[in-house]
Amino acid sequence: MTNEKRLPRRNDPASTAARREALGLKGDVDLAPYVKVAESVTGTAVIPVSVAELHVSLGDYELSADGDVVETGRAEEDVVVPLAHTEGGLTVSLQRGAKAASESGGFRTYVVADRITRASCFVCRDAGDALALARWIEARVGEMRDWLRAADIPELSKHAVLREAKTHVVGPMCHVLWRFTTGDAVGPNMMTRNAYALNTAFVSPNAPVAIERIALEANMGGDKKSSYEYFQSGHGKTVIAEATLTDEAIRRVLRTTAEDLDELAWAGTHGAVASGMQSVAFTPASAVAAIFAATGQDLGMVGTSSMAHGTSRRIEGGLHASVRFPGLEVGTVGGGTALPTQRQWLELMGCAGPGKVYRLAQIVAAAALALEISASAAMATAGSESFFRAHFERGGLR
Amino acid sequence: MTNEKRLPRRNDPASTAARREALGLKGDVDLAPYVKVAESVTGTAVIPVSVAELHVSLGDYELSADGDVVETGRAEEDVVVPLAHTEGGLTVSLQRGAKAASESGGFRTYVVADRITRASCFVCRDAGDALALARWIEARVGEMRDWLRAADIPELSKHAVLREAKTHVVGPMCHVLWRFTTGDAVGPNMMTRNAYALNTAFVSPNAPVAIERIALEANMGGDKKSSYEYFQSGHGKTVIAEATLTDEAIRRVLRTTAEDLDELAWAGTHGAVASGMQSVAFTPASAVAAIFAATGQDLGMVGTSSMAHGTSRRIEGGLHASVRFPGLEVGTVGGGTALPTQRQWLELMGCAGPGKVYRLAQIVAAAALALEISASAAMATAGSESFFRAHFERGGLR
Amino acid sequence: MTNEKRLPRRNDPASTAARREALGLKGDVDLAPYVKVAESVTGTAVIPVSVAELHVSLGDYELSADGDVVETGRAEEDVVVPLAHTEGGLTVSLQRGAKAASESGGFRTYVVADRITRASCFVCRDAGDALALARWIEARVGEMRDWLRAADIPELSKHAVLREAKTHVVGPMCHVLWRFTTGDAVGPNMMTRNAYALNTAFVSPNAPVAIERIALEANMGGDKKSSYEYFQSGHGKTVIAEATLTDEAIRRVLRTTAEDLDELAWAGTHGAVASGMQSVAFTPASAVAAIFAATGQDLGMVGTSSMAHGTSRRIEGGLHASVRFPGLEVGTVGGGTALPTQRQWLELMGCAGPGKVYRLAQIVAAAALALEISASAAMATAGSESFFRAHFERGGLR
Amino acid sequence: MTNEKRLPRRNDPASTAARREALGLKGDVDLAPYVKVAESVTGTAVIPVSVAELHVSLGDYELSADGDVVETGRAEEDVVVPLAHTEGGLTVSLQRGAKAASESGGFRTYVVADRITRASCFVCRDAGDALALARWIEARVGEMRDWLRAADIPELSKHAVLREAKTHVVGPMCHVLWRFTTGDAVGPNMMTRNAYALNTAFVSPNAPVAIERIALEANMGGDKKSSYEYFQSGHGKTVIAEATLTDEAIRRVLRTTAEDLDELAWAGTHGAVASGMQSVAFTPASAVAAIFAATGQDLGMVGTSSMAHGTSRRIEGGLHASVRFPGLEVGTVGGGTALPTQRQWLELMGCAGPGKVYRLAQIVAAAALALEISASAAMATAGSESFFRAHFERGGLR
Repeated sequence: MTNEKRLPRRNDPASTAARREALGLKGDVDLAPYVKVAESVTGTAVIPVSVAELHVSLGDYELSADGDVVETGRAEEDVVVPLAHTEGGLTVSLQRGAKAASESGGFRTYVVADRITRASCFVCRDAGDALALARWIEARVGEMRDWLRAADIPELSKHAVLREAKTHVVGPMCHVLWRFTTGDAVGPNMMTRNAYALNTAFVSPNAPVAIERIALEANMGGDKKSSYEYFQSGHGKTVIAEATLTDEAIRRVLRTTAEDLDELAWAGTHGAVASGMQSVAFTPASAVAAIFAATGQDLGMVGTSSMAHGTSRRIEGGLHASVRFPGLEVGTVGGGTALPTQRQWLELMGCAGPGKVYRLAQIVAAAALALEISASAAMATAGSESFFRAHFERGGLR
Repeated sequence: MTNEKRLPRRNDPASTAARREALGLKGDVDLAPYVKVAESVTGTAVIPVSVAELHVSLGDYELSADGDVVETGRAEEDVVVPLAHTEGGLTVSLQRGAKAASESGGFRTYVVADRITRASCFVCRDAGDALALARWIEARVGEMRDWLRAADIPELSKHAVLREAKTHVVGPMCHVLWRFTTGDAVGPNMMTRNAYALNTAFVSPNAPVAIERIALEANMGGDKKSSYEYFQSGHGKTVIAEATLTDEAIRRVLRTTAEDLDELAWAGTHGAVASGMQSVAFTPASAVAAIFAATGQDLGMVGTSSMAHGTSRRIEGGLHASVRFPGLEVGTVGGGTALPTQRQWLELMGCAGPGKVYRLAQIVAAAALALEISASAAMATAGSESFFRAHFERGGLR
Repeated sequence: MTNEKRLPRRNDPASTAARREALGLKGDVDLAPYVKVAESVTGTAVIPVSVAELHVSLGDYELSADGDVVETGRAEEDVVVPLAHTEGGLTVSLQRGAKAASESGGFRTYVVADRITRASCFVCRDAGDALALARWIEARVGEMRDWLRAADIPELSKHAVLREAKTHVVGPMCHVLWRFTTGDAVGPNMMTRNAYALNTAFVSPNAPVAIERIALEANMGGDKKSSYEYFQSGHGKTVIAEATLTDEAIRRVLRTTAEDLDELAWAGTHGAVASGMQSVAFTPASAVAAIFAATGQDLGMVGTSSMAHGTSRRIEGGLHASVRFPGLEVGTVGGGTALPTQRQWLELMGCAGPGKVYRLAQIVAAAALALEISASAAMATAGSESFFRAHFERGGLR
Repeated sequence: MTNEKRLPRRNDPASTAARREALGLKGDVDLAPYVKVAESVTGTAVIPVSVAELHVSLGDYELSADGDVVETGRAEEDVVVPLAHTEGGLTVSLQRGAKAASESGGFRTYVVADRITRASCFVCRDAGDALALARWIEARVGEMRDWLRAADIPELSKHAVLREAKTHVVGPMCHVLWRFTTGDAVGPNMMTRNAYALNTAFVSPNAPVAIERIALEANMGGDKKSSYEYFQSGHGKTVIAEATLTDEAIRRVLRTTAEDLDELAWAGTHGAVASGMQSVAFTPASAVAAIFAATGQDLGMVGTSSMAHGTSRRIEGGLHASVRFPGLEVGTVGGGTALPTQRQWLELMGCAGPGKVYRLAQIVAAAALALEISASAAMATAGSESFFRAHFERGGLR
């Protein structure tokens, strides 16, 4: 019942060549750049990358000593956005939305918050003990932060700074959301290591009650699964993008009207409520996934990073459109960001390396709003004819 | 405020070269294979692909005339799964879960249903009219199916077969879920075209009440946004994967016990409830995204395709583990499946081209369950030490 | 640790008197009407009942042989609605909304569907078996319906007619929603008895696979707990109420404008999305609870019966307002409906006894919409001053 | 189309008598106690009240200066609980669960938090302004608290103390959760008045940006509609009740086993997940509604107060059972608590008047857990025979 012959697992050239031969993979491929990012690397997947241009007012942000994201400046820029995807019509649609915004003064983006969370759980004897533990933990967040900074444990990351600990007791479980900032990286590894240390080296030996079990992660947050906890409180970078579209741009570029867009938003919002959809939006995941794939972000985070709350509102002379991303899990270091093509696309946006993560998060949000605007416009025309046309003509290419 | 100089948009070699030069992109890259899948193609993103081996009992399935998925056979196979990602530890962890399953008799997978939906909305004068329209539509599904088959409209797809129409009236809105089967493709384009035809050429001219507006898509479903509608009723292929792990495999391969796994599942399920998480699972998106990226699936569908409901249950001599994917949006034709590297990886799994889509869906589900098992095991050990170790040692590579 | 002296439990006069004395309850109270509805009856709770007047177009409905709710007529009526509550301002507010609707032509109500569900679960060895069981059950619904009708089992109810069985397999569990109609009663008892019979006397002995455990109710529905399953598919009577308010009535009676109401609905809907609220509405539970308490409905069903999806939409000359109640769990026989005061209030509405349940459901929906309209109007005025005034002046009475 | 003759609306004896005569209501009824709690009072609804006995370890709690709930003592007591309902079997079942707990050492209850919230919304020009307003508000909570305390506005309540303001920006909306403590009353009126004052007299004149509209309540919380916001963060009193049942009590009193209860909880939790149920529990609303109706609580809050997260866990020698109520909206003053019968039942529990609200909240939670235990036990027996029996025999009385 077990596999007769197993493939070699290593990433040395001989093992790789043996794997490729055993699997009948033809041709030569240089896997050297990838031997450290994954095990049993055997080939590549090559995805085409399109580009679109956005005009955006981007904020400059710094993290305060307390962990707040503080705006220190703001400037309008033209940004070129790389989109790795194979969906005919996506790039041209996003570009159309960007044009409508650009002719209306451009996008404006804001970073609202920055946190990433490991949701651990301590199982106690009963709820009384779990409540005692919760109070004990909540009173020691500052102490724990200092301990993490000072501890001489090689596994710890100094980049992952503990900011808050939110406890939630259910039955004998004391769930704890360890909320960190992690600098320019998304940071799942570094916060995992620090949370493990907190659980086993700080809480466990010092807790005022007996702890029966510890789970480093127990789903009270939303690690790669969408949740209301993170839809609201955020995970990664919480970002809002907005544009105030003029009637002229709506008519000329989007070929529709503010009234039609407003009516569509109304029906779409009620449809979302009726279906139990968490997000209210049109297709943010298409844009998020395309930038994630181009820039070496974790594609397993596409779903959570695409949670979105869009709004549109008619105003004098046009329409205000916005989207709130509660948790863009983006990094400019770590993960796949240093791989050759991925690094190139980050550089194209001015987002490679340290100090660029809030910029990247804002560009993702603006690009997604561009697509929201254009896709909505296509849907809002009589009977959604434009949307149909796009699917027929562009989708028909394949 | 508008962009001074715009990049050329076309995919002809001169425009592409001009774009690359304008953007300062170095080096040569052959973009010929991609000129038909997206606009303004300017380069590529290259993602390393690892492989893992699974032992799975896969069902053979056919679609009945009524649109039911019928099992016609079943066979055990060893399958090699391509994983495009940059998350250190993911491949080795998935492989460990696969090994535990393999030593316990392997995975078993089942395709439960096959539907893809366009959620249109007809806005009427009031609820009375919307209810009359809903009854009228529900009584004509067979007639509409025949009409789609017979109609001589070039835009229509003969592959997208209408199966049901579910109506839902809220206020003056008659939301309609047009539920199709689309053969070996995921089928968003083809069902969009057919739904548009139904809306504008069948319903609109014949409806018993006045229709004020039609939206081709109005969120009553869950197109690239997760929703309860699809978490329950499904979108794409609904697939269940399961394995009955032996105590021996749990101990020897996973280094934990059925009791520890059971306790973790208990805490993790209650954590999920407390956070308002829709899925109950550990990290299905990691596996789904990795196979999607390798095989040319739509990465914007990673979030919805990763909706998952996992269970574990202690049994005599071991643990039963399973995961239900309500909507794996996979195709073996269309989208990016025909691109060179993507096609290669589909072929590796015996999943390239027509007649293979249920096979692909099952392999995705089994691979994701392999990762669920291993990640859970890492978390279930005392204090989740194994999970921490994996993150420290593998994540530390980068 | 156990109780020293226990109170007598019975409902005979001596036991009741002994209980009252032991508890130091003063005064005389006639408990004879209540000895059969509950155990250990010891006194009463007396709630004041207000009345409001509604002008409604009510449909006449019959249940077809297939279990569909069919409209057979429609007439406008003035109805007096009893409201048992202690919330100052509620009755006057509801009356104001009713007046605005009345001056705009009145409410219109529709019964959309009628089902009540027991959600049983069969635990099998694995998912393969659970799927086999699900297919077997779904193919035998007609057979089961006939069996329930013909079976000579005294515990069975002939009023609870099986209509559909929806299966949902997760892991080794085959959840089954047994969907019944139950005539003029809400019917939890009768459908529980019939579902038990189906589980133990039909499915269990004949199932094609081994069943390890049966749970008569396992939460796949939403018995007294709100759920998306019932928010969408309904439980009890699914009813829509609507009114097309004129600008004149909005201004004169509600002291606001269609624009202000529309803006409030927009903010309130987005607030609901952001909070993860399932319903979108203002305060339907206030009206539902008040009628339920007056008429002997099950107060434990107030939460589920109050699930509501409201909409408002500006139209030429006014505003369309509506609310959809997916599951009004009302009866005109059974429960507390035959108690003296409760019966009186049902009679006041022409809703006592058999054949009146759809009428009652519609009146509840119209009354709730009346309150929605008025409460929204109070909130929609500048800064919600009217709402504040009502709370200050009416709430201040107490 | 309007009503021909309107009923008199006042509560003076002549108007009331005229109403009763116009409606054909027979008999005499003393409505004097009710003339101040509602308008157009016309009669009463009389509901029978049963009693059950609980053995509970109740905490003594005080509110700290910072608004935290602090336990200052704890004592075991026998409490008699009044249950106003007409559901045959409910009282006896709740009593059975109480007995099982009592024989296992009794219930233990904890008050975790105390907050009640008005969710206002400020609509600004755009998201940039809304974010500026949010930061401004969050920085002034202390100042606002002092302002409310010192302000010489007669409409203000000194009982409703502002504790926190949580902001949430979506599009141009700045939603604000004004979180108060309100002493012994539930407090919707008093916090509404104070929130109105904050909105219109503090924020509006001083805000750093232009505010286009203010809605006093805009659904970001969950006022009488269940929401994740309050399922998690709470509304009213957050209370946990627990019991550690012995195998002996489970066997002898509940006629089942810890294993059977555990298996049922497992199936029921997964059923809840599959149905998109927010709570995980069996029938908490039955107990909550029964105590609410007996004691003059707001019956429109039955649904929100019944949101519950139950757990069960096998332990050495028995089973740990618990339930977390995030938001019990109970008061011992205000609302209907001062009415004759309602006051009597509050006194029976030692819960009438000031200083008793945490006691009342704990008793509700313990009573609900008693019913959870017993209803689960009835369901957990083979095929849920006991549950069926109870419904057949008790339900059959009517």
